[in-house]
Amino acid sequence: MSVEATVIEMAKRAKQAARKVAAATTDQKNRVLSSIADKIEARAEAIQAENRKDIERAKEMGLTPAMIDRLTISDATIASMAGGLRDVVALPDPVGEVTSSEERPSGIKVSRVRIPLGVIGMIYESRPNVTIDAAGLCLKAGNAIILRGGSEAFHSNMVLAACIADALEENDLPKEVVQLIPMRDRDAVNVLLKQEAYLDVMIPRGGEGLIRFVTENSLIPVLKHYKGVCHVYVDSEADLEKAKAICMNSKVQRPGVCNAMETMLVHKDVAAEYLPLVGQAFKEAGVTLKGCPETRKHIAWAEEAVEADWPAEYLDLTLAVKVVDSVDDALDHIAAYNSGHTEAIVTKNEATARRFVQEADSSAVMVNASTRFNDGGELGLGAEIGISTSKLHAFGPMGLEELTSRKFVVYGNGQVRQ
Amino acid sequence: MSVEATVIEMAKRAKQAARKVAAATTDQKNRVLSSIADKIEARAEAIQAENRKDIERAKEMGLTPAMIDRLTISDATIASMAGGLRDVVALPDPVGEVTSSEERPSGIKVSRVRIPLGVIGMIYESRPNVTIDAAGLCLKAGNAIILRGGSEAFHSNMVLAACIADALEENDLPKEVVQLIPMRDRDAVNVLLKQEAYLDVMIPRGGEGLIRFVTENSLIPVLKHYKGVCHVYVDSEADLEKAKAICMNSKVQRPGVCNAMETMLVHKDVAAEYLPLVGQAFKEAGVTLKGCPETRKHIAWAEEAVEADWPAEYLDLTLAVKVVDSVDDALDHIAAYNSGHTEAIVTKNEATARRFVQEADSSAVMVNASTRFNDGGELGLGAEIGISTSKLHAFGPMGLEELTSRKFVVYGNGQVRQ
Repeated sequence: MSVEATVIEMAKRAKQAARKVAAATTDQKNRVLSSIADKIEARAEAIQAENRKDIERAKEMGLTPAMIDRLTISDATIASMAGGLRDVVALPDPVGEVTSSEERPSGIKVSRVRIPLGVIGMIYESRPNVTIDAAGLCLKAGNAIILRGGSEAFHSNMVLAACIADALEENDLPKEVVQLIPMRDRDAVNVLLKQEAYLDVMIPRGGEGLIRFVTENSLIPVLKHYKGVCHVYVDSEADLEKAKAICMNSKVQRPGVCNAMETMLVHKDVAAEYLPLVGQAFKEAGVTLKGCPETRKHIAWAEEAVEADWPAEYLDLTLAVKVVDSVDDALDHIAAYNSGHTEAIVTKNEATARRFVQEADSSAVMVNASTRFNDGGELGLGAEIGISTSKLHAFGPMGLEELTSRKFVVYGNGQVRQ
Repeated sequence: MSVEATVIEMAKRAKQAARKVAAATTDQKNRVLSSIADKIEARAEAIQAENRKDIERAKEMGLTPAMIDRLTISDATIASMAGGLRDVVALPDPVGEVTSSEERPSGIKVSRVRIPLGVIGMIYESRPNVTIDAAGLCLKAGNAIILRGGSEAFHSNMVLAACIADALEENDLPKEVVQLIPMRDRDAVNVLLKQEAYLDVMIPRGGEGLIRFVTENSLIPVLKHYKGVCHVYVDSEADLEKAKAICMNSKVQRPGVCNAMETMLVHKDVAAEYLPLVGQAFKEAGVTLKGCPETRKHIAWAEEAVEADWPAEYLDLTLAVKVVDSVDDALDHIAAYNSGHTEAIVTKNEATARRFVQEADSSAVMVNASTRFNDGGELGLGAEIGISTSKLHAFGPMGLEELTSRKFVVYGNGQVRQ
């Protein structure tokens, strides 16, 4: 079969399988998840053997050590995939939840009931554990899923997908509930993005290039996360010790992730006191600062910030710093450069905090807390499949609820429309 | 300015205006809505004079009487636009609603708060009242909106947009909260669909061609409604008198709308009794039937159904009829041909009803009630801006809540991530 015919056939089968998994009981879905976890542990050696094929090929192709690290399935990765699945077993099943219910003047009883989205397409890069994490969440929410992993993780993904397929069949669900596209061919993605008759949503996870490609070519709605240009604003009425701890944590604890701070905004009234204090801490942590002229008056070693620094997502130990005149000035800067991800304010003034919360237009707004809390686990979603930076359907971390939709259910007794 | 520069400038201004209207109080938004209603009534003569220009042009261009009817702003249209706005005033403001709230183990307090979507783009055809209805709902939900009406309603839309602009400015909101693209040029749509930096969602309303064009060309997420191929399944345990009333209402009351029935499925055990009964009623109502061979045994005058009848949206007094062996058979037919809009079952058996409700994969599933109840007003949303037949963000009628998103708001006391 051609690539096109193969992908279309997979999409059709996914839609058929979606009916079965939508009707599966919570218990049945949980048994599948537990069984995948058991198989991953039982087959760890075989999984790591396949993973080594990918690693060898990656080395031949000259991938960076960081990329090879992300590709590697260590013993800890095995434990983390299995543990993640068992965590999902413990989460409540969102399907069937009645979110509202009322009797209308016509006498019909109207309720809104949570349902699976249907068929989810997932396109992702390098980390093979995404195969397991994504499949587990989608399946618990009653969805079928078509996975397209990075070509560099091909063998790893295939052997993980086999664990899932076996677990599905042993628990009386069709193996087409979770399908991995079994070819490296780039054309497969182009074909998949046109199957709007069978797929309900596409979730790309990876670099900006991948996400842009999916957005531009997909006829299927896309849930996307471009980047995290997160700001912390230190207000004139901030507790400066707390501000320092929050800014350090937001920047330094894990600089390579999307909820790390990229720009720090400091009110002019506290700049002279706060900047030398926090500057010293950043210096000790090895952070490169890119400062506005006012910043450099207080931190002499800071480099000069240029326009390109304000929209930059460094994902690294680099931070842009700007002194602002007021909370309005901070909000204007954020409106101009933010990416819809996370903003934080440090202040003791409740009115200022309220304004910031209302006007900072991002998926999560923190008052006196680190930007690093914008995370499905920390915010109480249990687990996340990604973080959406656009407002349609989901804004922020996407957990099980975000992998569902709702339908109207109407019970009548012969009612007709007048 | 070129078309491109004009549209991009409008999009930028809409994004700036969105910050203002997002922060507006409920009272301020309601005053704008009331003021638009007052102006429409006060300026009725001028509005109808502009509308006559469109009608004359439409006649010259040879538009059908039905199209000219939809284009016409009668006294009743004036009253209905003003009344619709006052209904929206009475609806609760969704913005600011706290939909959940909890303290996490880390000590941060996490809530989810309803926020406007931001900037909505709306592309629609012929009916100028959509200009008012859409603007009213979007504005109440705190959004800015860019309207692109049909070129045939150009003068009507311009004069209605002027009422809105005046009402905004009189109530201290920028007139860029609601903008109408002031040119007929088709290129304007192409430019608008690429402004993902400024717009949050596109809502096309019109024929399948328009919606497909928007879906294929938009970089902005699209909320869409393709068509309504709605089914009523008359079960072996149906009350046949109720079935007849429901099927008649679903087909005949307003055959040109998307929630009208297009295919009737009848269980074989009741076909001999039910089909002659309902067939006679359809005959008297002037309905053309397209029946499967089994149907035509019981309704001799029914025409022969061909494959093209099963996915057809007739929007007319024509109905496809098929005899099925079981509820499974009915669900299989629905899975193959439905459009995600509305399905209904008539049965006295609760278990059968439950199965149908769970498995019929549409935005609204009716038990013993007409398909015509899939409507924002009837289902309790107050008013609707359209009906979504895809599951992302909204599935079914879209009211005020569907014109919003939610963000996470976190209050801490200096917490950092461990």
